[in-house]
Amino acid sequence: MDNTSTPLVSVIMGSTSDLPIMEKALAFLETMEIPFEINALSAHRTPAEVESFAANASKRGIKVIIAAAGMAAALPGVIAANTALPVIGVPIKSSMEGLDAMLSMIQMPPGIPVATVAINGALNAAILALEILSLGDKTLEAKMIAYKTGLKQKIVKANEDLSKLDYKYKV
Amino acid sequence: MDNTSTPLVSVIMGSTSDLPIMEKALAFLETMEIPFEINALSAHRTPAEVESFAANASKRGIKVIIAAAGMAAALPGVIAANTALPVIGVPIKSSMEGLDAMLSMIQMPPGIPVATVAINGALNAAILALEILSLGDKTLEAKMIAYKTGLKQKIVKANEDLSKLDYKYKV
Amino acid sequence: MDNTSTPLVSVIMGSTSDLPIMEKALAFLETMEIPFEINALSAHRTPAEVESFAANASKRGIKVIIAAAGMAAALPGVIAANTALPVIGVPIKSSMEGLDAMLSMIQMPPGIPVATVAINGALNAAILALEILSLGDKTLEAKMIAYKTGLKQKIVKANEDLSKLDYKYKV
Amino acid sequence: MDNTSTPLVSVIMGSTSDLPIMEKALAFLETMEIPFEINALSAHRTPAEVESFAANASKRGIKVIIAAAGMAAALPGVIAANTALPVIGVPIKSSMEGLDAMLSMIQMPPGIPVATVAINGALNAAILALEILSLGDKTLEAKMIAYKTGLKQKIVKANEDLSKLDYKYKV
Amino acid sequence: MDNTSTPLVSVIMGSTSDLPIMEKALAFLETMEIPFEINALSAHRTPAEVESFAANASKRGIKVIIAAAGMAAALPGVIAANTALPVIGVPIKSSMEGLDAMLSMIQMPPGIPVATVAINGALNAAILALEILSLGDKTLEAKMIAYKTGLKQKIVKANEDLSKLDYKYKV
Amino acid sequence: MDNTSTPLVSVIMGSTSDLPIMEKALAFLETMEIPFEINALSAHRTPAEVESFAANASKRGIKVIIAAAGMAAALPGVIAANTALPVIGVPIKSSMEGLDAMLSMIQMPPGIPVATVAINGALNAAILALEILSLGDKTLEAKMIAYKTGLKQKIVKANEDLSKLDYKYKV
Amino acid sequence: MDNTSTPLVSVIMGSTSDLPIMEKALAFLETMEIPFEINALSAHRTPAEVESFAANASKRGIKVIIAAAGMAAALPGVIAANTALPVIGVPIKSSMEGLDAMLSMIQMPPGIPVATVAINGALNAAILALEILSLGDKTLEAKMIAYKTGLKQKIVKANEDLSKLDYKYKV
Amino acid sequence: MDNTSTPLVSVIMGSTSDLPIMEKALAFLETMEIPFEINALSAHRTPAEVESFAANASKRGIKVIIAAAGMAAALPGVIAANTALPVIGVPIKSSMEGLDAMLSMIQMPPGIPVATVAINGALNAAILALEILSLGDKTLEAKMIAYKTGLKQKIVKANEDLSKLDYKYKV
Repeated sequence: MDNTSTPLVSVIMGSTSDLPIMEKALAFLETMEIPFEINALSAHRTPAEVESFAANASKRGIKVIIAAAGMAAALPGVIAANTALPVIGVPIKSSMEGLDAMLSMIQMPPGIPVATVAINGALNAAILALEILSLGDKTLEAKMIAYKTGLKQKIVKANEDLSKLDYKYKV
Repeated sequence: MDNTSTPLVSVIMGSTSDLPIMEKALAFLETMEIPFEINALSAHRTPAEVESFAANASKRGIKVIIAAAGMAAALPGVIAANTALPVIGVPIKSSMEGLDAMLSMIQMPPGIPVATVAINGALNAAILALEILSLGDKTLEAKMIAYKTGLKQKIVKANEDLSKLDYKYKV
Repeated sequence: MDNTSTPLVSVIMGSTSDLPIMEKALAFLETMEIPFEINALSAHRTPAEVESFAANASKRGIKVIIAAAGMAAALPGVIAANTALPVIGVPIKSSMEGLDAMLSMIQMPPGIPVATVAINGALNAAILALEILSLGDKTLEAKMIAYKTGLKQKIVKANEDLSKLDYKYKV
Repeated sequence: MDNTSTPLVSVIMGSTSDLPIMEKALAFLETMEIPFEINALSAHRTPAEVESFAANASKRGIKVIIAAAGMAAALPGVIAANTALPVIGVPIKSSMEGLDAMLSMIQMPPGIPVATVAINGALNAAILALEILSLGDKTLEAKMIAYKTGLKQKIVKANEDLSKLDYKYKV
Repeated sequence: MDNTSTPLVSVIMGSTSDLPIMEKALAFLETMEIPFEINALSAHRTPAEVESFAANASKRGIKVIIAAAGMAAALPGVIAANTALPVIGVPIKSSMEGLDAMLSMIQMPPGIPVATVAINGALNAAILALEILSLGDKTLEAKMIAYKTGLKQKIVKANEDLSKLDYKYKV
Repeated sequence: MDNTSTPLVSVIMGSTSDLPIMEKALAFLETMEIPFEINALSAHRTPAEVESFAANASKRGIKVIIAAAGMAAALPGVIAANTALPVIGVPIKSSMEGLDAMLSMIQMPPGIPVATVAINGALNAAILALEILSLGDKTLEAKMIAYKTGLKQKIVKANEDLSKLDYKYKV
Repeated sequence: MDNTSTPLVSVIMGSTSDLPIMEKALAFLETMEIPFEINALSAHRTPAEVESFAANASKRGIKVIIAAAGMAAALPGVIAANTALPVIGVPIKSSMEGLDAMLSMIQMPPGIPVATVAINGALNAAILALEILSLGDKTLEAKMIAYKTGLKQKIVKANEDLSKLDYKYKV
Repeated sequence: MDNTSTPLVSVIMGSTSDLPIMEKALAFLETMEIPFEINALSAHRTPAEVESFAANASKRGIKVIIAAAGMAAALPGVIAANTALPVIGVPIKSSMEGLDAMLSMIQMPPGIPVATVAINGALNAAILALEILSLGDKTLEAKMIAYKTGLKQKIVKANEDLSKLDYKYKV
């Protein structure tokens, strides 16, 4: 790593077992050339570290926090309790089709929101983080508009594939 | 493809990953000799194309639209918002046992129905499309009655298999 | 009643307790000037009548069947098993938030589709029926396009109401 | 097969794909030396045959009907609608963890019960059938009491296995 | 009470709060002139009494046991563990839409079935009990066939009500 | 209040709106003459106080902690993360039938258990607390055995009520 | 209204029936002195207006969009498909305990995130919007930190109420 | 086995098929040097043994009971009905994602609590048992505090792994 700038996005996960899911978020941040950091923290195993991390994130220049967790996924909510930065939650599927993690994140009580995305929705968490960062950054905003516009290429490609299907009554 | 007639059924899917499921619909349309078309469209990735497609489908001679999608499956609903043609929704299972896609399709607000079939129910979507087309087509109606009557052959065959089971107390 | 023409839509319900829900469908058919009939039938209490009804509906001129039922809602499926007409199912909420009726209708096995709409979605069932009838009827098609276009009036009215809200920072 | 006595239990399934699950029921009937029959029937594919079967089962000497089905599992309910014999339903898991089949069977409306057992609970369906048959048959009742008493042998065996586990602090 | 004959059906409930639901079962047994008994027992509050009751029910002449319970509804399963009589379970809705009671009854392990009916399905439990009793009783069988046939009267009445609905386009 | 002894049980709730539910726990502790304390704490609104409370509870003589919360109910888990005392969680129903609170408590990751009781199960939380306290206290153990034995009185009373029901065929 | 500045937050709802829920968001924006606008739009009734609104929101100076919808809640997803601004979704409970709206919003496909908050979580949507706006605004950031810190006052008040409870064994 | 001291924890399971899950509990008890016993018992197959076990556990010196079961998991509840010892329930996933076992354990009626942990949460059951035992044992309490403190080592290790990830924009 040769990048020494201040990270803008902090990606938190409870275990390296979440990494295969979260790598899609990391790859997107990399592609968009956004300085980021990755940390393992646990609302249940390292509560003091979570509180300290959350309380200091803004001062360190962090703008958006992405927190992934499974089961009784208290991590993003506890981070959100200790910061006024926007916190994005990624429910990780490890049991009950991910319903437990989803409800533990999204059903936050009034006062402390967690911006929850789909089960295992790491890529969307990173995109949402960049939509937020783009608000004060014209260059990034242009990149994001280009990215969203580019999504249709996947559909163009799908149409090309579908056009090759060989059915007699397919017009 | 040598068929140049106007398609009557338009099959829409959000990705080629839905194709293995949707092929049962295509095969049925083929068997019934109904001209059809296949397109990839996405309510979220190509919203303008979806709107344009839906708004023009009737003028192009399309009679029924089949739309397959997974997760927050907005595709059939957004198509239905832009056409007065009947729209059949096929919830694709890609997470949460398909419950997310099913509820995203079936729970449409008053005014804009989507005719929803079972999770991954591509064949039934095609059968439903042909039941609709049969209303103005005696030949097709006869084919559909024959098809539905023929379903019992599968049961006849099953009974033959069951009759070969060897149990002493089986009468 | 002075209307003597042949009914095009048959609305079936299992009990008069479903009537308050289904009246939205009846009112819509009335508004659209579509001859319709209403019958009480039960897959479990009058199975022979259901079979007879379904087997003869097409011959009597019926084009679309709307069937409402609650709990283990077998009615639309059993009707669909005995006709090649399109059958629209309306899951009625009477227990388990309507989930039991919804799954009993939508999860039909391959071969026998039921076009399922939302829980208590009687109006949408009638709209779907008319979308189907419109395929062979230019006058009705125009009415349906007008109806769907008119849905936006409800939003226009809502915007007028919202514009009257008095907040200092509302622009 | 050399058994020519009248079957007392009729086992119905919708497809030979249900056979691997239902074989536990067949094996139990065999072990208990109860004459039984097996048939494939479908509420949706062969509705007339289902009605005919159910209406005549009692006259043929059948005492209990076991019906297995998956998805929108209308089979046991439709059978129950046409007979006063006890009908036992076995929800087969083929989608949604079996929840669809379970609710389609158990949530029967007032008047037409289906005695529903666990998802894929074929063995328990057969045991329940024999508990019913035992009411008028002292020999069978003795067998059933012996069977139920014998269930504890599985626990005795489990305890023997557990006693061999080697842990230092296991007493 | 002047009836001194031996009860054939035993209705068990865990609390008098279940009585408003269970009265439909009692009324049906009364109508059908079946001697029955009612007892309050609890798998969790009076486990020894439950075991004793179940172990002796058959000797006392009981043929069928109906057990109602809510929440973690262990009662019918524990009764079934101590008798070879058929046990019918009625899940009572007191929380979670009754899903907790339903799953606690229906998902019995192999060897010990509980014939589970719908949530709050007391009437169907009684009907199922009488279907079982009818197997050895021609008089009762005739009554049950008459009852089931009579169910269609409710539909006949519903049709009369529906025929009075006043819509211009209702045929 | 004239009781000056050290509290043994600490009852924590997130809001006074939980009090009507939790009063059953308080009343039981009162009846059993167990010194207790009540505090309002929130994992999301007062995270530092939660951590401080949990870290010091044992030193203050607390033996068992009961924590009630609704929605994304992180409170008992975060307390458990900061103490080695047993923590009992009471999921409060305020949305989704209480399923969100239940899963947020019970699905704790390995290492940090929460002893979860039923939705709104405040009384059972207090009973569980006293079962734990009874392990080192013969007097309390005797009280608890008496209490559990006394539960059957409710059933005795129910039987008396049921015996007064007037049905002709009730034996 | 005398405020003529450019709105920063756009609050969208599908119907004035959502207003009682959404007023908590409006009141919070008002308290925080953030210029906002309110519009009624529907993904299904006014799809062209939704697309136009979303495509132009950024140019008009909008920074964050809050979209509320019930049932098959496609609104926030369709908005997000047409803008690179962050979109916050509020699932409105109108059926199925709000589960349908929640899944229709949160389970967005890769590429198009919706920041979903709790069912009926209007206040949290507004707080999340302001956390985002605060990233580029020191004054607002200070307000948000003060607000979040102030949340503990509700707990302080709750503790005062709890201290007045009169139990003999409450310490 | 050379350990002859009295067991303090009794681990009960319904079948040796639960052993692979429950071994994590056994290993933890072993590590913590707590004398324990293992038994197979079934609420449905050996009800008398369950009652006898539960009624005598306290007299034999057992302090905490851990009971694992799947499906309609009555075992911990029936044990709790016969003892005043704390009973910890472990729902085993064998169908329906474990939801059936979870609800059968956690939704106990007032009076008879089961301290329920996560689906397949054997390790947490053992930790909870030791938290309870620690209340009267300073040595064990120190071990438990050390264990809980040690949980953060897993996070430290995860951070080391994450620090090695090679991304250009990772700071």
